[in-house]
Amino acid sequence: MAAALSDENLLRHMVHFEAALAAALEKHAVLPQGVAASILAAGRDEFVRNALAEQARAAGNIVIPFVKVLTERVAAIDRQAANFVHWGATSQDVLDTALILQLREGLILLRVDVDAACKSFATLAREHRLAEMPGRTWLQQAPPVTLGLKIAGWLDALQRHRRRLADLLQHNFALQFGGAVGTLAALDPHGPAVAKTLAVELDLACPPIPWHTHRDRFAEMATVLGLLAGTLGKIGRDVSLLMQTEVGEMMEPMVAGAGGSSTMPHKRNPVCSAIMLSAAVRVPALVSTMLSSMVQEHERGLGGWHAEWETMTEIFRLVSGSLGCAVEIANGAEAAPAAMRRNLQILNGAPMAEALSFELARKVGKSEAHRLMEKASSLALRAGIPLKHAVLRDQTLAGHFAGEDLDRLLDPSNYLGASQEFIENVISHEDKTDAQG
Amino acid sequence: MAAALSDENLLRHMVHFEAALAAALEKHAVLPQGVAASILAAGRDEFVRNALAEQARAAGNIVIPFVKVLTERVAAIDRQAANFVHWGATSQDVLDTALILQLREGLILLRVDVDAACKSFATLAREHRLAEMPGRTWLQQAPPVTLGLKIAGWLDALQRHRRRLADLLQHNFALQFGGAVGTLAALDPHGPAVAKTLAVELDLACPPIPWHTHRDRFAEMATVLGLLAGTLGKIGRDVSLLMQTEVGEMMEPMVAGAGGSSTMPHKRNPVCSAIMLSAAVRVPALVSTMLSSMVQEHERGLGGWHAEWETMTEIFRLVSGSLGCAVEIANGAEAAPAAMRRNLQILNGAPMAEALSFELARKVGKSEAHRLMEKASSLALRAGIPLKHAVLRDQTLAGHFAGEDLDRLLDPSNYLGASQEFIENVISHEDKTDAQG
Amino acid sequence: MAAALSDENLLRHMVHFEAALAAALEKHAVLPQGVAASILAAGRDEFVRNALAEQARAAGNIVIPFVKVLTERVAAIDRQAANFVHWGATSQDVLDTALILQLREGLILLRVDVDAACKSFATLAREHRLAEMPGRTWLQQAPPVTLGLKIAGWLDALQRHRRRLADLLQHNFALQFGGAVGTLAALDPHGPAVAKTLAVELDLACPPIPWHTHRDRFAEMATVLGLLAGTLGKIGRDVSLLMQTEVGEMMEPMVAGAGGSSTMPHKRNPVCSAIMLSAAVRVPALVSTMLSSMVQEHERGLGGWHAEWETMTEIFRLVSGSLGCAVEIANGAEAAPAAMRRNLQILNGAPMAEALSFELARKVGKSEAHRLMEKASSLALRAGIPLKHAVLRDQTLAGHFAGEDLDRLLDPSNYLGASQEFIENVISHEDKTDAQG
Amino acid sequence: MAAALSDENLLRHMVHFEAALAAALEKHAVLPQGVAASILAAGRDEFVRNALAEQARAAGNIVIPFVKVLTERVAAIDRQAANFVHWGATSQDVLDTALILQLREGLILLRVDVDAACKSFATLAREHRLAEMPGRTWLQQAPPVTLGLKIAGWLDALQRHRRRLADLLQHNFALQFGGAVGTLAALDPHGPAVAKTLAVELDLACPPIPWHTHRDRFAEMATVLGLLAGTLGKIGRDVSLLMQTEVGEMMEPMVAGAGGSSTMPHKRNPVCSAIMLSAAVRVPALVSTMLSSMVQEHERGLGGWHAEWETMTEIFRLVSGSLGCAVEIANGAEAAPAAMRRNLQILNGAPMAEALSFELARKVGKSEAHRLMEKASSLALRAGIPLKHAVLRDQTLAGHFAGEDLDRLLDPSNYLGASQEFIENVISHEDKTDAQG
Repeated sequence: MAAALSDENLLRHMVHFEAALAAALEKHAVLPQGVAASILAAGRDEFVRNALAEQARAAGNIVIPFVKVLTERVAAIDRQAANFVHWGATSQDVLDTALILQLREGLILLRVDVDAACKSFATLAREHRLAEMPGRTWLQQAPPVTLGLKIAGWLDALQRHRRRLADLLQHNFALQFGGAVGTLAALDPHGPAVAKTLAVELDLACPPIPWHTHRDRFAEMATVLGLLAGTLGKIGRDVSLLMQTEVGEMMEPMVAGAGGSSTMPHKRNPVCSAIMLSAAVRVPALVSTMLSSMVQEHERGLGGWHAEWETMTEIFRLVSGSLGCAVEIANGAEAAPAAMRRNLQILNGAPMAEALSFELARKVGKSEAHRLMEKASSLALRAGIPLKHAVLRDQTLAGHFAGEDLDRLLDPSNYLGASQEFIENVISHEDKTDAQG
Repeated sequence: MAAALSDENLLRHMVHFEAALAAALEKHAVLPQGVAASILAAGRDEFVRNALAEQARAAGNIVIPFVKVLTERVAAIDRQAANFVHWGATSQDVLDTALILQLREGLILLRVDVDAACKSFATLAREHRLAEMPGRTWLQQAPPVTLGLKIAGWLDALQRHRRRLADLLQHNFALQFGGAVGTLAALDPHGPAVAKTLAVELDLACPPIPWHTHRDRFAEMATVLGLLAGTLGKIGRDVSLLMQTEVGEMMEPMVAGAGGSSTMPHKRNPVCSAIMLSAAVRVPALVSTMLSSMVQEHERGLGGWHAEWETMTEIFRLVSGSLGCAVEIANGAEAAPAAMRRNLQILNGAPMAEALSFELARKVGKSEAHRLMEKASSLALRAGIPLKHAVLRDQTLAGHFAGEDLDRLLDPSNYLGASQEFIENVISHEDKTDAQG
Repeated sequence: MAAALSDENLLRHMVHFEAALAAALEKHAVLPQGVAASILAAGRDEFVRNALAEQARAAGNIVIPFVKVLTERVAAIDRQAANFVHWGATSQDVLDTALILQLREGLILLRVDVDAACKSFATLAREHRLAEMPGRTWLQQAPPVTLGLKIAGWLDALQRHRRRLADLLQHNFALQFGGAVGTLAALDPHGPAVAKTLAVELDLACPPIPWHTHRDRFAEMATVLGLLAGTLGKIGRDVSLLMQTEVGEMMEPMVAGAGGSSTMPHKRNPVCSAIMLSAAVRVPALVSTMLSSMVQEHERGLGGWHAEWETMTEIFRLVSGSLGCAVEIANGAEAAPAAMRRNLQILNGAPMAEALSFELARKVGKSEAHRLMEKASSLALRAGIPLKHAVLRDQTLAGHFAGEDLDRLLDPSNYLGASQEFIENVISHEDKTDAQG
Repeated sequence: MAAALSDENLLRHMVHFEAALAAALEKHAVLPQGVAASILAAGRDEFVRNALAEQARAAGNIVIPFVKVLTERVAAIDRQAANFVHWGATSQDVLDTALILQLREGLILLRVDVDAACKSFATLAREHRLAEMPGRTWLQQAPPVTLGLKIAGWLDALQRHRRRLADLLQHNFALQFGGAVGTLAALDPHGPAVAKTLAVELDLACPPIPWHTHRDRFAEMATVLGLLAGTLGKIGRDVSLLMQTEVGEMMEPMVAGAGGSSTMPHKRNPVCSAIMLSAAVRVPALVSTMLSSMVQEHERGLGGWHAEWETMTEIFRLVSGSLGCAVEIANGAEAAPAAMRRNLQILNGAPMAEALSFELARKVGKSEAHRLMEKASSLALRAGIPLKHAVLRDQTLAGHFAGEDLDRLLDPSNYLGASQEFIENVISHEDKTDAQG
């Protein structure tokens, strides 16, 4: 991803744009033959790094020095061709389109990682589908779930993000090409035909109209990545909470040289979760910048456009880093079933109050059952006694549950509901996707 | 929209959920017949406003008092039915699903307004397709465009938003129903079947797995509205800039009683633009809140979930207000062709330098042509003389353009490029959509 | 706080501004005597609620209908006085100044709550200054701290916020009064003198120049509240983590009717923490809106100004709610020393590796000591044996620690460093503040 | 600023911290003499660039490889000293304190630029204090101001920011030093004494208690820079609006090689404004990230802390760039009084309606006067006639203004109110500051 997002790659795509533009113009006989070939030849060497490194930064707009240097290089190859470099395009045409090509590479890399994460989480969910652990709401223990169910929830969300990325790749990649003000006046009357050819050359959609100051396509990419960052943050939060010393139900994979402390010899820190959470803190604000910067003036904005570049690549960089951590976790996380079993016992059955409450509700109504069990579980928690004892101490409850097998009702294994069906729903979707892919 | 987003409507949908849940449970013989009917009957009266008004606010969680009051009301109708209210659901099931139903109403209203704005902008774009005005980049005059082209750009973006809203309505509305921890354990073994029936009752998709702490569906709605707010802000910026006293090319519709000043008798303020710009300032941050709040813990988050409700309805409210203003502008904006013509003359032809530059580039190459015309236009602007005179004063240029019809080259009307084709692309798409709709 | 932030209170302050303005104008003989008295009389009745309720919302700008209604009311009292209502002021003068007065009330309320939280946290820190508990970094156990130290950290931050609020109240409250464009031309030559008198009347600073479109004063209030929200969120996070079922070291106070679940009878949820975390998710984005909206055009902005009102009161509302929860926690949180002691034993001494490492470092150097102890604690954790055993199993370490009292070194009570001094630093500062207050 | 914010400078300050720590430990006889000197010697060479360049990035936490490399370097100089490098500190102590030292340099640079901008804007305000131009509210012409008044408004805001920066430099720079969990246990009983000495060495305040997870000091720096970015954005917006082709009242300084277009030879773009506006779009969101990341867990957070570093330096970089542009504008902006005069005439006197309204109000009351003048100015604007004519056409108004010198009342020069006094207030404050500085 670092390579895809690099300035070098951006410049590579800028050369690609200029060459493709020249080729399109040649095809429609606007330019003489040979310009595109010379641009490609000129762009092939390492000139960009050497000649543009400082100029690009100095000028604010990278395109003007780029066109200047490219033109000089082309001139060294073919004097005549140099007269036609960047013909009919404006700076934003080059930069937007190159950025689009660059981000498309980035999206494809993300999709690969989402696929990898999904595949591994599916395996992990299947492996731990029966591993009972406390459900937790508001960070308090609740009725049981299985680790597989939790992972299936992560996977289900990632599957939706995969669809979103696929939709983006299908719908959101359109050529930017309008000339100075979006009329392609300098190419008249060949503008639209050249645009169509150019779009084909670059494998981009040809939009009905240039869209210099309509940035929703870029911003939409940012929002989709923002959604992905949110889900990854949720996964990172869950993992870091499960890995707490006092919980200990799931551990990030050990990576040699990572997760240590400069002063505490015993530490094994959740490095992946930290990166995923950090990205989830940073990306939402960067997405808001992309939305704020949509307010661009007339035919070319000032300020809004300039706010996009670094913001966009930063979003890609952060989401890519976070996603890489998810893949690591999906591939190497260690579950600790013993800790899960231990934690299921901590409250002595209180989280099973709901199970008893519903059993009882059939006899006394839901409200009354809730009230009775609230009383009993409150007693159990306050007195530190098993819920079973608290129930038996209460005359009303003891009467109602007289004939019941309380141990059966209080066994977490008997209160997992549709966990297995839900896990299966999500995993089987993954299996199908994998088979198609 | 205010009605759709109101607390009253939310409560209405909460009743709807509870009744539909009871109906589904009756269908699968989990509950005796008649519960759903009693809930519907109980929910029909005005109890929500009176009984819940204060309680809802006090409890933090609106659901618990809601269930309590609803159960009491049901008991007054059918003692037995009251025993089964809110059977197997958790607070979040009710609240999330009711919010989804509420936001679906909101989205449909937005879609109606986007349709209205598109239709009117299409008419406006057609009407002013030939109205020449200065193109403007970086807030400086550039080669000419037409007002129709600018409006077609707005319309093109709105058409994309219409597709996004349609996609949301198609893909993003899934039932939330998982019970305490997403296992539907209290309904075992009927959970999944009840969920399917309930989803059908509410005309929602039945998701493969409950998604209590996976908020990407909600957050995605926020992002799509955020994108729309950005485009509306861009339109508001353009209109307010065009309406500046010194530009005066387009005016917001006059609305009696709006746009005045408490101290300046002559003022006619761009009220619609202000609202659109204000929304474009506020919504991006609110979207970032929706993304930030995705990091929710385990089976039910704390903090993140609670950050969503008001944020989400605020986003809908702001975007709806902004969109209403766009409709107003689309329906009633007044163009001032005289001002456009006057403004086209301000720079005495300098913005046409590009036209001459391309003409010249065929003879001397693009770089040299750019250099020569830069010199001439700089002289023209500094000396305050027409570009034509500056060109003729320059011996080289005068030589090159000797045989040319300089007036023809300098006429904005001859340098509109593919404007008409671009406008037509966008309008004809609208015509087609309208015909289908 | 709800009362301070209400629309009713805003209108009350608007009346106050208009009356004070009239009084100042009377004092400088710009207006005849009696206008101020009539405005006060007119504003005393309940007209605002009844007459403005719908109009205010309709007009977008609340001031124009306000002035109209107020003028009518004054006319009913004193025909002549009605001719001079809102003399020389512009809408923004009234609205900004009224908002300032309203927010000053809000800040004073916040300061009271910060004081209350500080006082109670000081008591709590003192009470639990010796209560040993695991320190936790990256959510992993580390060397020990005491609960008092943790609370002293919260308190120390709140003390800084108290200083920030005091600074705001001292420096940031300046009259807004400039007339239409900030020249007070309508009052010439009395403008500056009237402004000075008006500022005195309202107990506000008189700024060197009107500041209609320079919003840093408002935005600074937002940022200071944003900082406070962040600290409160950190406290809420700590409390909610400590209250986890598996940790159980600190409990939010029990409040009857709060923290329950609609389906799980045993639940006691951390409601305060949830509110504090929710505010910490929402406020940062709202602060960014206040910063974004600072970009206001010329003498009066459009969009930016309009984005401020609701955002600002929302920030106050959220921070006030969060702070109220902190006060509740400070007053009623329950510590569980038994759980702390239990948790200190979980890792069988591994978190004390640092203590041994520093002891050892004096003999073998810091790097080597770290390496050796890393090995030993890794063994201890992997094998699930006490660190002591792991140390003794390692020949090198066993040699080094031969003469040492390992139990002494491994006792958390002997490794609390300067905890007591740090706690005392913070508490004694509070005691001094309290004595001064 | 780039140098101050560079990784190289951060590493320099990290060496500085380690050396100062060793010196403090030597002073309190915790360590043998000579360690500090060896660290300084080791840190003097270029090792950081060469040895850390890749490691730093790889490890995520820069401190661990840093300590490793530094220790090796020290060992090469003094084998014994190497045993005591990084004694008693944790990673966050080094990194936070080095960042603080780095940001202090950055703030001092910003203060220099704010001073420079203030000084030049004071000169500019004085120079143009009488230059009449249209006031503009909601982007519509309003009664007149002078360019000096507008600039004095910018200056007044910058003066407040100067005070904020000074306050930050005075109050917000505190040593971070707490060891693993904030108890300095490894240095017991010398911790607090060492901390005090270390603070003196580094010219930082010694805080009452370590503050690892209380980030309000960092976040406050971010907010103050955020406020500054907002004001700079407002200035950039004003300049770019004034520089519009159709307004043309103020021009950014010409800088050779900047502001051109790749296709339009005549363009002179407002490059400085674009940078200032771009920063004002980006910084608010980054500030919100700093506030969001304040929610850090227990004794060391995960995610929140990691979100700070890049965000903070990005804020400094953007604000510094924006401020540099303000200095450029303050030093070199060109005013165009002719354009101002021309623009004052555009509306044929309508913006002077307020002046007539107040004259009239003394006779007929403010409401009636407003109504009459609203009618007259509406007619004037609709019919395109001078306001004077519209007034005279209206029988009522003509009667009232019969004896008046209408031309005097309609002359903008006579309706500038207290402009000169306001300008003087602000400039004289600057003069005093300058004399003191």
